[in-house]
Amino acid sequence: MTMQPLVGVYNILATPVFPDGQLDIASLRRLIDATIRMGVTGITILGVVGEAQKQTDAQRMEVLTVAMEVNAGRVPIIVGTSRDSTPAAIVASHEALDAGAAGLMIAPPTFLQPGPGLTEHYRSIGDAVELPIVLQDYPVVNGVTMTPRAMADLANAVPSIVTIKLEDVPTPQRTSQTLTMIDRDVSVLGGLGGVYLLDELRRGSAGTMTGFAFPEVLVEIVSAWRAGDRGAATRTYNQYLPLLVFEGQPKLGLAIRKEILRRRGLITHADVIKPGPTLDAGTSADLTETMAALNLARFDLALA
Amino acid sequence: MTMQPLVGVYNILATPVFPDGQLDIASLRRLIDATIRMGVTGITILGVVGEAQKQTDAQRMEVLTVAMEVNAGRVPIIVGTSRDSTPAAIVASHEALDAGAAGLMIAPPTFLQPGPGLTEHYRSIGDAVELPIVLQDYPVVNGVTMTPRAMADLANAVPSIVTIKLEDVPTPQRTSQTLTMIDRDVSVLGGLGGVYLLDELRRGSAGTMTGFAFPEVLVEIVSAWRAGDRGAATRTYNQYLPLLVFEGQPKLGLAIRKEILRRRGLITHADVIKPGPTLDAGTSADLTETMAALNLARFDLALA
Amino acid sequence: MTMQPLVGVYNILATPVFPDGQLDIASLRRLIDATIRMGVTGITILGVVGEAQKQTDAQRMEVLTVAMEVNAGRVPIIVGTSRDSTPAAIVASHEALDAGAAGLMIAPPTFLQPGPGLTEHYRSIGDAVELPIVLQDYPVVNGVTMTPRAMADLANAVPSIVTIKLEDVPTPQRTSQTLTMIDRDVSVLGGLGGVYLLDELRRGSAGTMTGFAFPEVLVEIVSAWRAGDRGAATRTYNQYLPLLVFEGQPKLGLAIRKEILRRRGLITHADVIKPGPTLDAGTSADLTETMAALNLARFDLALA
Amino acid sequence: MTMQPLVGVYNILATPVFPDGQLDIASLRRLIDATIRMGVTGITILGVVGEAQKQTDAQRMEVLTVAMEVNAGRVPIIVGTSRDSTPAAIVASHEALDAGAAGLMIAPPTFLQPGPGLTEHYRSIGDAVELPIVLQDYPVVNGVTMTPRAMADLANAVPSIVTIKLEDVPTPQRTSQTLTMIDRDVSVLGGLGGVYLLDELRRGSAGTMTGFAFPEVLVEIVSAWRAGDRGAATRTYNQYLPLLVFEGQPKLGLAIRKEILRRRGLITHADVIKPGPTLDAGTSADLTETMAALNLARFDLALA
Repeated sequence: MTMQPLVGVYNILATPVFPDGQLDIASLRRLIDATIRMGVTGITILGVVGEAQKQTDAQRMEVLTVAMEVNAGRVPIIVGTSRDSTPAAIVASHEALDAGAAGLMIAPPTFLQPGPGLTEHYRSIGDAVELPIVLQDYPVVNGVTMTPRAMADLANAVPSIVTIKLEDVPTPQRTSQTLTMIDRDVSVLGGLGGVYLLDELRRGSAGTMTGFAFPEVLVEIVSAWRAGDRGAATRTYNQYLPLLVFEGQPKLGLAIRKEILRRRGLITHADVIKPGPTLDAGTSADLTETMAALNLARFDLALA
Repeated sequence: MTMQPLVGVYNILATPVFPDGQLDIASLRRLIDATIRMGVTGITILGVVGEAQKQTDAQRMEVLTVAMEVNAGRVPIIVGTSRDSTPAAIVASHEALDAGAAGLMIAPPTFLQPGPGLTEHYRSIGDAVELPIVLQDYPVVNGVTMTPRAMADLANAVPSIVTIKLEDVPTPQRTSQTLTMIDRDVSVLGGLGGVYLLDELRRGSAGTMTGFAFPEVLVEIVSAWRAGDRGAATRTYNQYLPLLVFEGQPKLGLAIRKEILRRRGLITHADVIKPGPTLDAGTSADLTETMAALNLARFDLALA
Repeated sequence: MTMQPLVGVYNILATPVFPDGQLDIASLRRLIDATIRMGVTGITILGVVGEAQKQTDAQRMEVLTVAMEVNAGRVPIIVGTSRDSTPAAIVASHEALDAGAAGLMIAPPTFLQPGPGLTEHYRSIGDAVELPIVLQDYPVVNGVTMTPRAMADLANAVPSIVTIKLEDVPTPQRTSQTLTMIDRDVSVLGGLGGVYLLDELRRGSAGTMTGFAFPEVLVEIVSAWRAGDRGAATRTYNQYLPLLVFEGQPKLGLAIRKEILRRRGLITHADVIKPGPTLDAGTSADLTETMAALNLARFDLALA
Repeated sequence: MTMQPLVGVYNILATPVFPDGQLDIASLRRLIDATIRMGVTGITILGVVGEAQKQTDAQRMEVLTVAMEVNAGRVPIIVGTSRDSTPAAIVASHEALDAGAAGLMIAPPTFLQPGPGLTEHYRSIGDAVELPIVLQDYPVVNGVTMTPRAMADLANAVPSIVTIKLEDVPTPQRTSQTLTMIDRDVSVLGGLGGVYLLDELRRGSAGTMTGFAFPEVLVEIVSAWRAGDRGAATRTYNQYLPLLVFEGQPKLGLAIRKEILRRRGLITHADVIKPGPTLDAGTSADLTETMAALNLARFDLALA
């Protein structure tokens, strides 16, 4: 196993479902295959916007199995295995390892603030399962706020942590602050739907792990940036920012994202597992208007 | 199926585990049998202090199966089936029904505040699974705060809700406020380890659903109260209040409770599934001192 | 007194201070005068980003007095009078009325969730002080979350509320939801630094009340929109969105805004009253780069 | 100035008001004088349960002035000067010093989590005002959660901090954990209405700073404990625990406390400044019943 920090664009995969919330496996296969062909570095399944916390263990296993099969080794697959206990996280992480995961993405248990208990949680998982860990910083979902100091302390204490998916605002400044305090080779990736992607790169992030419905845009930005073409990265970011901001609306974003994926033909239904946000007709029309201004057809042509 | 409001003392069962967090089935059997013989009205399994959210689906199914088998129909068993999605809650609730549950205890999904989405969540579960529902009000665990108005609106809108386990402070006053606003036959039970039990009864609660390590004390209080012997209820409550308060300490309570159950011989290990609270030596000694003053031996003699 | 709903662009005024946190009155005068000349509809002083909650009563009175004097009746001035008690809010609101305020902006007291107590708070202020009230929805600052239903109920119950400054995400969809439920003539204004301004207008907002450091941009967008030129509004919004997003970063935004105001020559020091965010050198350089791409000089030429 | 850690029973003074929320100075004088005669070590004014955050600067100054005058040097008076900015806290602290305060009680600014900014806040106040500081740990009021590690770091870094008023649960275990990590001579006092007083003493607290309406009970417990009479301390605690628990109900406690003070004749009106909790008739009757069982008359006889 390599324990290299993650770099590039990892797509957090949405999980397609039927209106009743059951898994839509045909759509899942189509979405995974298309996403890989968009040129992403890797895929992250069973994250928060993959609605993993809303699924049964059996459903999560099915998503995992299908993803590995469709991928067929083309890109590294990171698997979200956040659980509210250490033993349950280890069970899920073992399953991910057995299925062929390239790494784990793990957020702190609900309401477990940083301290010795949280450090032990990550260390125990790292000791039990030989996979690199992406530490997820996302207070919106678990009520856990980590300062740059707290994230750096965790990364310094737990060798399995190779990357931090940093999502508490302001992400750009916190990225550089966190990186300064870490004394190991650990990368920081952005998230939040890519809304702050350019500024995160400016402050030292190595890419992004997020679920924007046009991953091609994120790939263009990060590729240009990493090739040293700051101007091209900026132009692409500025051009598509209206859609990044529109889709990136907190609490509503996943419903918008699934609707875009549906319009792109990548999934059949835009439903979010209940309870969850829904688009009203007005917001749906606004999405149409926002997309119409952005010359997005070239992406679907390239994909076809 | 009867849809009667719950009345009396329902014990929220702790889930005994080995130091590594795996289920200790022998202790589980012993604990269930003993708890029933203590005279409780019923048992609630897979609640928050049963650490259900820290278990895998397979473990939860095992606890469910063992509980039903050991109970052998002696008392009604309520099953916690709180999940972060409606479909997952329905799956778990169906399993509970199939296993023989007498009812479901369901808290709102994490961070889902009251509103049409939450109402639909409960209504969908109620429509799908023919079992009475105990609405759990416990913001500490899910970040959801419900006013008396919000709880009453839910109870008025969802016929399956027969009881509210009311646990946001101040529980006594909120109990009477909530009962006033409900226009159906719904009961309110207290919780919070029984710390405010007497005052909850005074304000109209029909008993308690909680996990104090001497359920016999709660049974004595509620039995006396319901028999009209207000004085006896008060005397018993006042006598054991030091232990109710000691065990009822937020965040630490489950570790204390399991330690008491261990000392009573009802479970073999006092471990909480990690991450979780632990007792230091000083607090453990304080527990000894607190218990020594309370003439608790009579309960264990009665149980033997 | 007119009780008309607010429409247009109200600038939330930053409060200029010296590095030690004392008021910089010369800068305050310069900033107010310049802001009025930018064509804003009105000015809101002593809001959250005016750091009112960090000032003494005497300082707030000084800001109020200076603002009224410099304005000299040119535009309506709304005064933030949020306090943690009804009597204190009434005292502050009377002072605002006596000084010549056109309205009050009031957020709920810290941690006071919607319910009869909150309604009575607003009604008492409205009864005591004959000024229109802008209800501020901004959970970040007081921990109070209001659903569209709760905001509409408040507006329906309290005649003095003429406008809602709606700032909990997703603001566009919540704007239309709230407007639908209100049965009086009440407007909704956006906030959040204008990041979602276009989409808020699309969903029915009547403008914005926020503190972006180039209020001229917001004026152009809202003017074009209200004149029916949807295309021009969209072009301006899309053009300046990179700066709206950069400045609009939660928790850091005020430090960025003051730095821009300083660079524009409108205030002398960029300091935020301590404790508060500060810009590191890297973020400051990123700001330079972001601004350089946006042809902002025309605004300062127009202002000169 | 002496910078000794605080020891004993400091009463957090309620602030008596008329039904409209204006200060009732006559009651304030009566209450202060009576409280001193109850044998408390000192008095803390303008704390959270003194409703300081609901008062204007002028009202707070009046409470301060009256308290000093009535006290006439009999006991040390600690003054709450928590503010949301460093300069405002320094202004208030200077006023306290000038009036004759023996120390300051300061909680973190709203939502300012531990870190360099919070440390600088306390250090700046300590540098500016030569008075000992009581660090208040009370997340309920400001949304700030401090681990034992964070409190110890603050105390180690800021020499002015001589005492921690520790109020996040579980207070007993957190008291011993915090004391272990502090390498200076700093005391910990309990709070929370004295509900956990005995267990806090067991874990190393030096007394309590809280506002129970019978401070004499707290004085008896702490005096016995500090005299080495563990048994007497325990008996008194256990005897009055029903009232400690009743009055200590979160969110409602201040309304109960003021009602008890009113019944004792120490204040004229039981009103809490609006918005705030109120007692319904049922809870008021329950209070009567709870008090009737406790032989409280001896305290009022002693006071007469």
